[in-house]
Amino acid sequence: MILPSIETVVIVGSGNVATHFAEAIKKSGKKIIQIYSKHPNSAKLLSLETNSAFVKSINEITKEADLYILAINDNAIYEVASSIKIDNKLIVHTSGTVSAAVLHKASNNYGVIYPLQTFSKSSPVDWKTIPVFIEANNKENENILISFMKIIAANVTVMSSEKRKILHLSAVFVNNFVNYLYSIAEDIMQSNKIPFEYLKPLILETANKIITNNPVDIQTGPAKREDEKTIRKHLELLSYQKDYADIYSYLTNMIIKKHENKAKQ
Amino acid sequence: MILPSIETVVIVGSGNVATHFAEAIKKSGKKIIQIYSKHPNSAKLLSLETNSAFVKSINEITKEADLYILAINDNAIYEVASSIKIDNKLIVHTSGTVSAAVLHKASNNYGVIYPLQTFSKSSPVDWKTIPVFIEANNKENENILISFMKIIAANVTVMSSEKRKILHLSAVFVNNFVNYLYSIAEDIMQSNKIPFEYLKPLILETANKIITNNPVDIQTGPAKREDEKTIRKHLELLSYQKDYADIYSYLTNMIIKKHENKAKQ
Repeated sequence: MILPSIETVVIVGSGNVATHFAEAIKKSGKKIIQIYSKHPNSAKLLSLETNSAFVKSINEITKEADLYILAINDNAIYEVASSIKIDNKLIVHTSGTVSAAVLHKASNNYGVIYPLQTFSKSSPVDWKTIPVFIEANNKENENILISFMKIIAANVTVMSSEKRKILHLSAVFVNNFVNYLYSIAEDIMQSNKIPFEYLKPLILETANKIITNNPVDIQTGPAKREDEKTIRKHLELLSYQKDYADIYSYLTNMIIKKHENKAKQ
Repeated sequence: MILPSIETVVIVGSGNVATHFAEAIKKSGKKIIQIYSKHPNSAKLLSLETNSAFVKSINEITKEADLYILAINDNAIYEVASSIKIDNKLIVHTSGTVSAAVLHKASNNYGVIYPLQTFSKSSPVDWKTIPVFIEANNKENENILISFMKIIAANVTVMSSEKRKILHLSAVFVNNFVNYLYSIAEDIMQSNKIPFEYLKPLILETANKIITNNPVDIQTGPAKREDEKTIRKHLELLSYQKDYADIYSYLTNMIIKKHENKAKQ
């Protein structure tokens, strides 16, 4: 069976994810017909960059595209799916946490394209390294989406809504929470008039190490060693900022507990 | 004034830091005369690799070297400093948390060479990127240590014991605690039979982003957005593992609190 190929796309959204999708689709040789967003300024800019039309009302969205990509906030997906009129054309969202089935409101042909990466408009994206997870309401749509995304990305995998939610949850730990720890270190350094710059090689090497090691095997530091003297000194240094001292104690105790449990096994 | 140059070195220790120091010193053309360590096997190996002599007792350490580097655990520094006999030769340790003055027990000429990086024996080290922090008991020794380290490393800075402790504390946040979060994500993924591999591009990009951005400016995620629906879903997914749910709640509440405080300002 020859699958229908996606040649024309409508993008809903004009944020970080929408922008990187639009740029990649344009580069792949496919045609973006329209871009619709609640934020007209960024949407107009994105439509100019991608030779597509900006539409300012959801009712102006064409029914003629092969694929509709909702690259918008989780909370907006249900609302857009309820009001978009697309005659059962294929529609997807790009969210890690929202079920595919929410799109049933919009069409009988729906799915998810979830790229597991942190996007910002200003940073270029290397689609060759980003794992992309596909889900669809049936095998045919799944295959159509896989073929479409394989033109853009190197690492395309089918993943259920349930497992995709686990990916998103894990991403919160390694992206949001990790970045929060970076911001604490930045604040501690600045409060002591030391350039944050000095920490950057360590931050990069800490991330690079997991390429060839399991994180649990390379855990080091005063908590892992149960080095109470150093832990006490660190808590004294943090006594000026109770929240940071609390986070330090909390994570330290968790690491100690984890390694004691491991030792007992 | 022409400074005495360091030509010969004794290394005490044979762990990760000692190994990378020894390799770098050998490569710089300086001579490692002896290596002493409580762990004879790794010390013998390291002495073979660096054409130096292994000595098995602290009393066998020569008094003829220009510099003695204690690359050992914090807790062992005081003990070694109390028993080593080196006739007021220059001695340093490599610790982030121990004061330079502890080495007064060993010699009137002492200091610190603190490389701010995570070392493992198996990974090569790029000394061009590692910030190295120097402290010494007087200006002359400080200059001798700077000259010596500038042959090995590109980024050599004088830093007081007090500020060095802040560097070490901050390193715990961006290395030990971050790696712990990686290990939690690894465990969550494995428990759900999803390859940890999928998270690696996100981990690398999260670290890379801080090269050109301040962490506090690029914080994203359900906590930052105060997206209670997603937070609740994530806590449900973690209900099988109370510790992880607790860490999730704790860090989420801290991020919410931080951004509410920031908004009030």
